[in-house]
Amino acid sequence: MISRRNLFAGGAVTAAGALAAPATPAATPTRATLTRAAPAAEPFHGPHQAGVATSPQAYAVFLGLDLRPGGDRESVVRLMQLLTDDARRLTQGRPALADTEPELATTPARLTITFGFGAGLFAAAGVEPPLSPLPAFETDRLDKRWSGGDLLVQICADDQLTLAHALRMIVKDARSFTRVRWTQRGFRSALSPAGTTQRNLMGQVDGTVNPTDLDRAVWIGQGPQWLHGGTTLVLRRIRMKLETWDAADRVAREFTIGRRLGDGAPLTGRAEHDEPDFARTNRLGFPVISEYAHIRRARVADPGQRILRRPYNYDEGVAADGTSDSGLLFASYQADVERQFVPVQRRLAEGDLLNEWITTIGSAVFLIPPGCGPEGWIGETLPS
Amino acid sequence: MISRRNLFAGGAVTAAGALAAPATPAATPTRATLTRAAPAAEPFHGPHQAGVATSPQAYAVFLGLDLRPGGDRESVVRLMQLLTDDARRLTQGRPALADTEPELATTPARLTITFGFGAGLFAAAGVEPPLSPLPAFETDRLDKRWSGGDLLVQICADDQLTLAHALRMIVKDARSFTRVRWTQRGFRSALSPAGTTQRNLMGQVDGTVNPTDLDRAVWIGQGPQWLHGGTTLVLRRIRMKLETWDAADRVAREFTIGRRLGDGAPLTGRAEHDEPDFARTNRLGFPVISEYAHIRRARVADPGQRILRRPYNYDEGVAADGTSDSGLLFASYQADVERQFVPVQRRLAEGDLLNEWITTIGSAVFLIPPGCGPEGWIGETLPS
Repeated sequence: MISRRNLFAGGAVTAAGALAAPATPAATPTRATLTRAAPAAEPFHGPHQAGVATSPQAYAVFLGLDLRPGGDRESVVRLMQLLTDDARRLTQGRPALADTEPELATTPARLTITFGFGAGLFAAAGVEPPLSPLPAFETDRLDKRWSGGDLLVQICADDQLTLAHALRMIVKDARSFTRVRWTQRGFRSALSPAGTTQRNLMGQVDGTVNPTDLDRAVWIGQGPQWLHGGTTLVLRRIRMKLETWDAADRVAREFTIGRRLGDGAPLTGRAEHDEPDFARTNRLGFPVISEYAHIRRARVADPGQRILRRPYNYDEGVAADGTSDSGLLFASYQADVERQFVPVQRRLAEGDLLNEWITTIGSAVFLIPPGCGPEGWIGETLPS
Repeated sequence: MISRRNLFAGGAVTAAGALAAPATPAATPTRATLTRAAPAAEPFHGPHQAGVATSPQAYAVFLGLDLRPGGDRESVVRLMQLLTDDARRLTQGRPALADTEPELATTPARLTITFGFGAGLFAAAGVEPPLSPLPAFETDRLDKRWSGGDLLVQICADDQLTLAHALRMIVKDARSFTRVRWTQRGFRSALSPAGTTQRNLMGQVDGTVNPTDLDRAVWIGQGPQWLHGGTTLVLRRIRMKLETWDAADRVAREFTIGRRLGDGAPLTGRAEHDEPDFARTNRLGFPVISEYAHIRRARVADPGQRILRRPYNYDEGVAADGTSDSGLLFASYQADVERQFVPVQRRLAEGDLLNEWITTIGSAVFLIPPGCGPEGWIGETLPS
């Protein structure tokens, strides 16, 4: 009998290696690849935290924590040492130190646990915050329930039981230092071929243009030394009005996005990864890709300034009348929020046709500190 | 590059064939198995509905619908013809008739859509209900939010994007006939080896003893002809008090269940599937497996009377203090609710040690009508 886990592990390894060559068609699997007994564990130690450049796992939970009143630098240090130890163990398929269900820790399923620091944590630790709050965008309708937070824990895995266990251990160990502010759960397609771009719940191919040179676009390499190897996360909860989106026909939808729904190709191209031709006009002299099309507004010409998008879908309750609570957990990572994320978001807020069907209802921004070594802990570089 | 979908499809096929031999260890995959281009679609047509004997998929949503006031037999028939058509298409990877996001329908991911009829549907259709409500159990604390319903739609798949799309199409097509009463979402481990028993969020191996002869235990073969090939579903939402469970030590937990946590073996045996020896006593003369141990209370001596359990975990919000909203969507299928499910549940309610840590907060019972052929629809055998 074949273990699904081994099969999947083979797939996962391939997926992880696939980022660089996303357009290669699926080949016949070879025996050598498939019998590799991959542990399906993502490395925890390194110059960067895992969970950013990691090929996206199928499930994510973003956990927003607030420090308890009176939290100070010493408690932040103890908290981060404790949580780093949990993450180090759990991601490698080992139980946490006081694990109450150690049997649930044995399938790492590419688990990553990534920590992010918000303004409140810097205040408690007595450190000048290295990033500012986002400016207000006119189209935002932010709900406190999905916004802010002192400490972010991003937990991703290919198995929801693994994810549930890791979440529980982290929440439990953080409990004496923090209160839970929010949890946001998301998913991607678990089974779409490795290297293909995901579709969101609107049916669009979502996330085609990502940076390739992460050292320029994502990892911080300038400014204070203690941030080097880190990045920033902007997490936005974007609600989709699927009821009215469904009322729009395909032509309207494709005009809105600037891409074809079927294959994700730009309206001026033939394949998903073709460069859009923003200058091309139709016979009437109008641009083929509208001035207000989503891909034009979101465009960043310099690849070194692109944001790394790693979005998850959310789909929660269904109201009595059938209206769904669905959308996107838009997670973007960039070296510099002000220079990379803010200008794009400003252009979108000013005139993206898609705004008719989407509303940002949650927003938070975090510094993702650099990774650590086997003896270290996330946050160890915090200046005193 | 290897497609994860193909890999998974190979695993899924194996999983489906694994029920009969659950204890075989994982073998080296052969090339022939792995290159099979399995469509990962579960057959829709047949004497029984899919989603019962089907090897459990990783995700499930149970959707409870109520007919709108004035719903009559004609509207029930139209509704079931419409929903059957949706299920027939979506499970085979084809868009629903008026599919607004056809691109999301192309990965069947072993999707099954199973329909169940509750008391209100029989009343509307003018049919004497073939099953009674469950009796009240003393330990139940039922919440209307998770109980009852005229029509059940059980949607299961190995991919949550596929699941979300199918749910949306079904809700949309049912909207003019029904209102949504509840949705309950659950998951199992996606990656544990095929044929192994799942663990629940308490860390227990859960669901070891299932019937092997489904024709006796699960499928209705007696009584009115129109029910033959059908079954019944009891769906119970069982909340787990994980906070206090975690405070119990392993000895107490194993005593409560009657099985070892590590390997799921009964306390009198060496392997999960060993038959428990309920007569064995310890040196003090007390039974090794307590009179109140869960496995003794749940035991059904006659394999033909066993219930088929197909449970899913649920794990939803986390409260500010870290308390989780977690538990089990206990789904059991049996030919006769009164003869098979009720006696077991009565014994559990009267004296299962596990009741200290679990509470049933939702309950519903449905008739799962027989399957249908390519021209038929689920419910076509309803007597006039």
